[in-house]
Amino acid sequence: MFKQVTVSGATQGVLKRHWKRSIGTGRLGLALQQEYQEHLEMVQEAIGFDYIRGHGLLHDDVGIYRELTQDGETRVFYNFTYIDRIFDAYLAKGLKPYVELGFMPEALASGDQTVFYWKGNVTPPKDYDRWAALIEAVIRHFIERYGLKEVLTWPFEVWNEPNLVNFWKDADQAEYFKLYQVTAEAVKRVHPELQVGGPAICGGSDHWITDFLEFCHARNVPVDFVSRHAYTARQPHRKTPEYYYQELANPEKMLHELQEVREMIRQSPFPDLPFHITEYNTSYSPINPVHDTALNAAYLARILSESGDYADVMSYWTFSDVFEESDVPKAQFHGGFGLIALNGIPKPTFHLFAFFQALGEEVLYRDDSLLVTRREDGTLALLSWNAVLEEGEEGDEQHIQAKLPFSTEEVFVKRQIVNEAYANPWKTWQQMGRPRFPSKGQIQTLRQAAVPKLTTQAARTADGVLELNWKMGKNEITLLEVAPVRNESHTYWGLDDSLIYRGGTEEEDQ
Amino acid sequence: MFKQVTVSGATQGVLKRHWKRSIGTGRLGLALQQEYQEHLEMVQEAIGFDYIRGHGLLHDDVGIYRELTQDGETRVFYNFTYIDRIFDAYLAKGLKPYVELGFMPEALASGDQTVFYWKGNVTPPKDYDRWAALIEAVIRHFIERYGLKEVLTWPFEVWNEPNLVNFWKDADQAEYFKLYQVTAEAVKRVHPELQVGGPAICGGSDHWITDFLEFCHARNVPVDFVSRHAYTARQPHRKTPEYYYQELANPEKMLHELQEVREMIRQSPFPDLPFHITEYNTSYSPINPVHDTALNAAYLARILSESGDYADVMSYWTFSDVFEESDVPKAQFHGGFGLIALNGIPKPTFHLFAFFQALGEEVLYRDDSLLVTRREDGTLALLSWNAVLEEGEEGDEQHIQAKLPFSTEEVFVKRQIVNEAYANPWKTWQQMGRPRFPSKGQIQTLRQAAVPKLTTQAARTADGVLELNWKMGKNEITLLEVAPVRNESHTYWGLDDSLIYRGGTEEEDQ
Amino acid sequence: MFKQVTVSGATQGVLKRHWKRSIGTGRLGLALQQEYQEHLEMVQEAIGFDYIRGHGLLHDDVGIYRELTQDGETRVFYNFTYIDRIFDAYLAKGLKPYVELGFMPEALASGDQTVFYWKGNVTPPKDYDRWAALIEAVIRHFIERYGLKEVLTWPFEVWNEPNLVNFWKDADQAEYFKLYQVTAEAVKRVHPELQVGGPAICGGSDHWITDFLEFCHARNVPVDFVSRHAYTARQPHRKTPEYYYQELANPEKMLHELQEVREMIRQSPFPDLPFHITEYNTSYSPINPVHDTALNAAYLARILSESGDYADVMSYWTFSDVFEESDVPKAQFHGGFGLIALNGIPKPTFHLFAFFQALGEEVLYRDDSLLVTRREDGTLALLSWNAVLEEGEEGDEQHIQAKLPFSTEEVFVKRQIVNEAYANPWKTWQQMGRPRFPSKGQIQTLRQAAVPKLTTQAARTADGVLELNWKMGKNEITLLEVAPVRNESHTYWGLDDSLIYRGGTEEEDQ
Amino acid sequence: MFKQVTVSGATQGVLKRHWKRSIGTGRLGLALQQEYQEHLEMVQEAIGFDYIRGHGLLHDDVGIYRELTQDGETRVFYNFTYIDRIFDAYLAKGLKPYVELGFMPEALASGDQTVFYWKGNVTPPKDYDRWAALIEAVIRHFIERYGLKEVLTWPFEVWNEPNLVNFWKDADQAEYFKLYQVTAEAVKRVHPELQVGGPAICGGSDHWITDFLEFCHARNVPVDFVSRHAYTARQPHRKTPEYYYQELANPEKMLHELQEVREMIRQSPFPDLPFHITEYNTSYSPINPVHDTALNAAYLARILSESGDYADVMSYWTFSDVFEESDVPKAQFHGGFGLIALNGIPKPTFHLFAFFQALGEEVLYRDDSLLVTRREDGTLALLSWNAVLEEGEEGDEQHIQAKLPFSTEEVFVKRQIVNEAYANPWKTWQQMGRPRFPSKGQIQTLRQAAVPKLTTQAARTADGVLELNWKMGKNEITLLEVAPVRNESHTYWGLDDSLIYRGGTEEEDQ
Repeated sequence: MFKQVTVSGATQGVLKRHWKRSIGTGRLGLALQQEYQEHLEMVQEAIGFDYIRGHGLLHDDVGIYRELTQDGETRVFYNFTYIDRIFDAYLAKGLKPYVELGFMPEALASGDQTVFYWKGNVTPPKDYDRWAALIEAVIRHFIERYGLKEVLTWPFEVWNEPNLVNFWKDADQAEYFKLYQVTAEAVKRVHPELQVGGPAICGGSDHWITDFLEFCHARNVPVDFVSRHAYTARQPHRKTPEYYYQELANPEKMLHELQEVREMIRQSPFPDLPFHITEYNTSYSPINPVHDTALNAAYLARILSESGDYADVMSYWTFSDVFEESDVPKAQFHGGFGLIALNGIPKPTFHLFAFFQALGEEVLYRDDSLLVTRREDGTLALLSWNAVLEEGEEGDEQHIQAKLPFSTEEVFVKRQIVNEAYANPWKTWQQMGRPRFPSKGQIQTLRQAAVPKLTTQAARTADGVLELNWKMGKNEITLLEVAPVRNESHTYWGLDDSLIYRGGTEEEDQ
Repeated sequence: MFKQVTVSGATQGVLKRHWKRSIGTGRLGLALQQEYQEHLEMVQEAIGFDYIRGHGLLHDDVGIYRELTQDGETRVFYNFTYIDRIFDAYLAKGLKPYVELGFMPEALASGDQTVFYWKGNVTPPKDYDRWAALIEAVIRHFIERYGLKEVLTWPFEVWNEPNLVNFWKDADQAEYFKLYQVTAEAVKRVHPELQVGGPAICGGSDHWITDFLEFCHARNVPVDFVSRHAYTARQPHRKTPEYYYQELANPEKMLHELQEVREMIRQSPFPDLPFHITEYNTSYSPINPVHDTALNAAYLARILSESGDYADVMSYWTFSDVFEESDVPKAQFHGGFGLIALNGIPKPTFHLFAFFQALGEEVLYRDDSLLVTRREDGTLALLSWNAVLEEGEEGDEQHIQAKLPFSTEEVFVKRQIVNEAYANPWKTWQQMGRPRFPSKGQIQTLRQAAVPKLTTQAARTADGVLELNWKMGKNEITLLEVAPVRNESHTYWGLDDSLIYRGGTEEEDQ
Repeated sequence: MFKQVTVSGATQGVLKRHWKRSIGTGRLGLALQQEYQEHLEMVQEAIGFDYIRGHGLLHDDVGIYRELTQDGETRVFYNFTYIDRIFDAYLAKGLKPYVELGFMPEALASGDQTVFYWKGNVTPPKDYDRWAALIEAVIRHFIERYGLKEVLTWPFEVWNEPNLVNFWKDADQAEYFKLYQVTAEAVKRVHPELQVGGPAICGGSDHWITDFLEFCHARNVPVDFVSRHAYTARQPHRKTPEYYYQELANPEKMLHELQEVREMIRQSPFPDLPFHITEYNTSYSPINPVHDTALNAAYLARILSESGDYADVMSYWTFSDVFEESDVPKAQFHGGFGLIALNGIPKPTFHLFAFFQALGEEVLYRDDSLLVTRREDGTLALLSWNAVLEEGEEGDEQHIQAKLPFSTEEVFVKRQIVNEAYANPWKTWQQMGRPRFPSKGQIQTLRQAAVPKLTTQAARTADGVLELNWKMGKNEITLLEVAPVRNESHTYWGLDDSLIYRGGTEEEDQ
Repeated sequence: MFKQVTVSGATQGVLKRHWKRSIGTGRLGLALQQEYQEHLEMVQEAIGFDYIRGHGLLHDDVGIYRELTQDGETRVFYNFTYIDRIFDAYLAKGLKPYVELGFMPEALASGDQTVFYWKGNVTPPKDYDRWAALIEAVIRHFIERYGLKEVLTWPFEVWNEPNLVNFWKDADQAEYFKLYQVTAEAVKRVHPELQVGGPAICGGSDHWITDFLEFCHARNVPVDFVSRHAYTARQPHRKTPEYYYQELANPEKMLHELQEVREMIRQSPFPDLPFHITEYNTSYSPINPVHDTALNAAYLARILSESGDYADVMSYWTFSDVFEESDVPKAQFHGGFGLIALNGIPKPTFHLFAFFQALGEEVLYRDDSLLVTRREDGTLALLSWNAVLEEGEEGDEQHIQAKLPFSTEEVFVKRQIVNEAYANPWKTWQQMGRPRFPSKGQIQTLRQAAVPKLTTQAARTADGVLELNWKMGKNEITLLEVAPVRNESHTYWGLDDSLIYRGGTEEEDQ
């Protein structure tokens, strides 16, 4: 494939921040772990998300809700020991909590149905008053510890995927609406400007969106944002104890879904509500090896590029393979959602986000496989991608020629490449024999293998135009940065590289 | 060029540690600097030298020797504030001082001749008694602070290159021998087992070696080792305020010189004295750009490989471009001696030492461009190099085929490459327009450009033999590591990479 | 109380290392946590234990033992992801695992009886063959990862407190002996020099020791050490959901118990077996506030001082309040076992161990409240303590006069004090109103309040004897360090402190 | 002495930031040193100054101005290698440069008169055009590297103390005014909004202020601020090679001087110019031991408290004893200016600044030895001091009773004390025998001895008034922080401290 692009210097718009507004995490209790925090540090240093969202705030391992008993008397006890440690750590890394209110503490649960290896209870509260009191107590504690001004910036989302029977008993919509109402009203009792929203559904039953907004409207229930999830993998065609294998739809499918939901909101009684995608990825399974591949990065590039046209927040699910929904991870690479694999090894998709972070705010050009931006300092940053879902005879490679406006004659071009061959530690790990529990030496090699390939070159513009030609490998994402050169070579008195180590007289010494 | 090598499993000897016994440094006063210490940390982490040697212990900026005066009375004052800080820092990084005793404190100097931008005084003491007292006081202080056991392991070398008029007034041999005798006897007065040696000459007048040893023998002057320097650059054919350009002799020339001096020692009254090369490099100039090149690394590989046949200590001059002999460095790259350029950017020669550090102790094969070693854990480590002093039509590349004994069928081969194209930040810096004082962004790019290229592959042995083929670029050094693979792929229940993201049914969900 | 002691310079023996051979920890799964590792770092930096022992190696949260099922087929799967992370972290901090083999993985358990908030299963294996295979697999993995030489230094202890019904179903001795035999034989099948032992009982039924050793003798079952626990708290006289309150016996009681068990071993068929106290403390409850007090430190001092007369290993239970046996900790101070409270605040007992670490190896004097030692460098280190279990009219304070041999005339005396008033953050926390979840400012104050009081003085010996007088407050531990002074004051030319800021002429300037 | 104070809740004003606007440093070249940067890190973490000012920007060790020569041709060369490293480090620590333009590069100097051990050249430029070109080049480089917006916030001060013959040849006022004019005009040529000022005089010839402002007015020379220094020590009554001893005037003297100069400015043609004290301290000598004392802190407290009434910037001279004006420091304590002594040991005056940093912005009360402030969160912070310049029979101690308004009944009072006995490492060092080059163990003890004494207490208000009583030792500074207590004790179910370790039944167990 060959593509030619001519970019004018005129602004085409602003690169929205939707893609970095939020990042997903394994259940909050995992945030106590050291490796979790190390991965989060890597992510924030290279990318810098604004919010973090995960399940399990009210799960028993965080331990907030307890009932103590003595001599026949029972008292409710709220324990903030762990959640303080967790939120302190988030805020110290520049992340605000995107607070998902769930699952059910065992002592408050009406049933014993659970989800995941870590047994999140998905039944309604057995006592809605105590539930409401819990919600209020938790938020009041947040305000006391972090200040009202801070907490007013945190979204509170009610539950997770209530439209699925495994996440909400019987996927009972009426019961969810009750939960939502009780919860939203409890939130607003703490402070009317706190933000609350839902219904946090996964795709497949989008009528919930309409139902939910009509319910809120009819009952005068507060709602500040609409949330939904988005995945593009179809039903698994093979499941094993270690893997889910699934076909992926095209990226357009997700974009189309977002567009549809945005339209549903526009038609609702709350046409201007913000729309949050609080989870998205290719596959929704934490054991699908597609997450470890270069394809995952190349595939998602278009979604990061265009989803901001429809959604205000996109929260990639998740930042790290420190994650336990499907048991303790069984191998170095196991198909986890993480941008970072165990032992601190970035996957290709990590670099996708880091490359987006390197882009400028001003968009000069955008199509379905190329973004050209200009940064405040006048340098250009281009991102191109080549996702290969269907392999063809010649389609796996892509040749691109771009003509770019640039003011200086001499330019410096820096390119960073992630594809099947580079920054693909999953491949190197296969060559090692897929060691489940790699040695320190193997981990070191995998880290080296996770670095994007760098090439640099000096180039020249002609008549204010820089022509760049580059070739994209299979499932590649490439970041190109173009900077002006102020050549100082002439200031080196007597400079002549041709004289190095050659020629000269016969005398030697010293 | 094409080379075929067949390696048997039989041991050919032990890879000596001579190449890592010592590393050179800019004058000791620079060790107070933060960037100096950061570079030293990088070097010790990747390589781990045993000793560190530099000029200026007694130079006035370290400030040890002072004469205080009041009301006509003068007192000698020894100030150890800075040298304690410096030696504490060395020892904390696992480095022992290789103590060069010089230059002359101004208050003790008989003249005002100096060397270098930083004005090291190179004249004899005006009072040999006070000099001897100084030497004793300094060493007694070291013993008090670090313990006798520790200090007994430190070599004390008397002066630097007294055979050059710029380093020792008139290159007066008799005066040097006097200095040596007074100093050596002072050292031994502190403790008879302390090690003292000389004459620390540069090449070009090796008769000093013989003269020196005969002098010691005749006068019964203590001597525990012989020291000399070795550089292979000829006289400059161009000098500018920023650069020296010099022709390099072949590496054999240095090896031949070492062999000759070793033979001179054998013929002396002290035939078994250790022989220390306390400085070596290609050029002896701190502003020769050859030091920044890939050639420098490829060129020195053979010297690291073979110099241990003749010398017990090799001390590369120097670890860092934090160095001031020829003024404050004027640019990011300026031809400095350092393994590490300013702003923490490793040069190709840094990797040469890191690659040597990765080799095993057991040598299976050695020729003039290839070393094959086996490590304790049974893995193989090969180093090959391709120094191109004279460019030919086809000579710049080298194809190598090696047949290696290996016990497992599946093997993992890791290759790291440094050459003109990779891990060559000097080239990238040229593309940037040679910025003298690069921005943070440019520094970040140069660091990325300083990483060796990594390739990995899975390979198979046949009949216990692994055949490796690789191509060496111009001025390349390559490290190849061969490890056994214990393939765990069969333990993953249902593993089938061909199922990832493809095929499957039409239902979608979640 | 007034005490006079005259110490001669003669050696009275060696201060054994039994007290630092091991330290207890909350269940191993907690070692994944960041705060746990931070506390461990503090402990190792200040004290430096040799081994670490805790429950839960085989508990499901570490996740080693799994059974995977598909299409009716079940496979055993050993998952070392977490245990590798945990043991890597221990070894990186200089700690070797003291491996307790337990509790029962759910998939292997014969029943559902559990212990603790975290539900350790305490029933025998439903299949002893699979249990034995698990033990072998785990140890083989350790050897593969850490090397045989290393693992041969790790003790393997079979189960925990099988003589209690809550730790071993029905406290069934015959079943425990079966478990022990199967396990010990599995260990030895991996390598005959691996060390295995038991019975890990708590006090109160010491006949188990004799029964156990006779069983091993009769059946020829391997046993390399005998282990037991020791606590001195009596039955609780009040229990609440937050606290246990218990009376403490005198420290002599524990010493007497150790002596008795040591004698039982001497009378057994294995008279020379090492004797390990693999847990000890005042109270065995993780919610007894005595652990937070200065008394706890002063009380244990004598036990650290003398227990080495009977036991080879003493493992204090535990290093940190990051601990969950009785639910997630409900407050900053909650009576946890830890040397370090939540948020990195050292308790008085932390300093007890740090003070012991500061003692010399050579004992010059020892009684029931004073230890005088000499360090290698000739300095003296004294530890005195004043545990007040029964408050009297005047007994709460203690005046001590010690006459100590010392060679120099001038000496420098450094004293560090921990008692009710100093280094007692628990008291400061009470003054704050016992905040359960303290703010950052409060934590900072608590850390400041946890520093021992320092006093320093210059003193003089007379005729080679230094007379020191000091007063001990209630529940105090004091460390006194006596170092020679080499007074340099005379070397400061013109020194006269009386001239500072006083007198002088009227002119002013600059 | 006994003092009673009743504080109403009414605001008395705002605590100005003048005292933390700037901090002095040894010559800029020292900023390359590691220990320098470590001390600066300590200072910024505890205090957080806004600007940093020191000599030597243009001194040859920073190496900015060079003239290169070849074949009879000379070229000016500006070398920014070191100054970039230095300013990068400042900015990374939150400090902006307060740029003093001086001294004279050797190649530009008209004479060879120097000042200090490090030989700053104090002669006028031999060529004012080249000087102006240098100033422009330097500032243009700053703008290029750090941006115009940043550099517009940096003051540019012309020279240092030109009214002294040792700092400016012959203290030639006309020549200084010429230098000022040329420099100021060069600065403004780069950008008209850059700030430039002078005359940077020391006290004793304040007519320079008037002369200078009249000169600027008459010649229409730009001036954006007036700068001066302030010291209170009189002429030395003893000088030795190691020490200056000087009498101190009362703190009022300095305040009075500032008032006078402020008035001179008001009377000048530029009545509203900002007034900067770009150096101040007790003694102007870097070898006056008063700087190491508790007196220095207690003495300066009033100056920090009140100098903001007259001056806009106060720049304490200096932050660290890494300083070389009077040779390399000869001992651990040597009378240096630093807030921090060698080896990272804070002096009492360090805590004075840290205590000021802890004060609130709202002043409730101020007299000559007490400041009472309220912080944004409603807590109170009091600073009291007791400088004893003249020792009396009873005057060395001070009893203070303060009645403070406070809203809660229970309060927590935290007190931190620095005086002769506490946080006085200089005293401990004397007890050690004044070791010039202390061992690591001694350094550790000195660091412990440098921590303020902490006491905490619970107190109660009566009718909204808290009565605090405290005693001030000689040369003490005390920080008192008063916070509300929300007592949670009642929430601990069954809490009864009296039950700890006492009473109970006889049964024991586990």
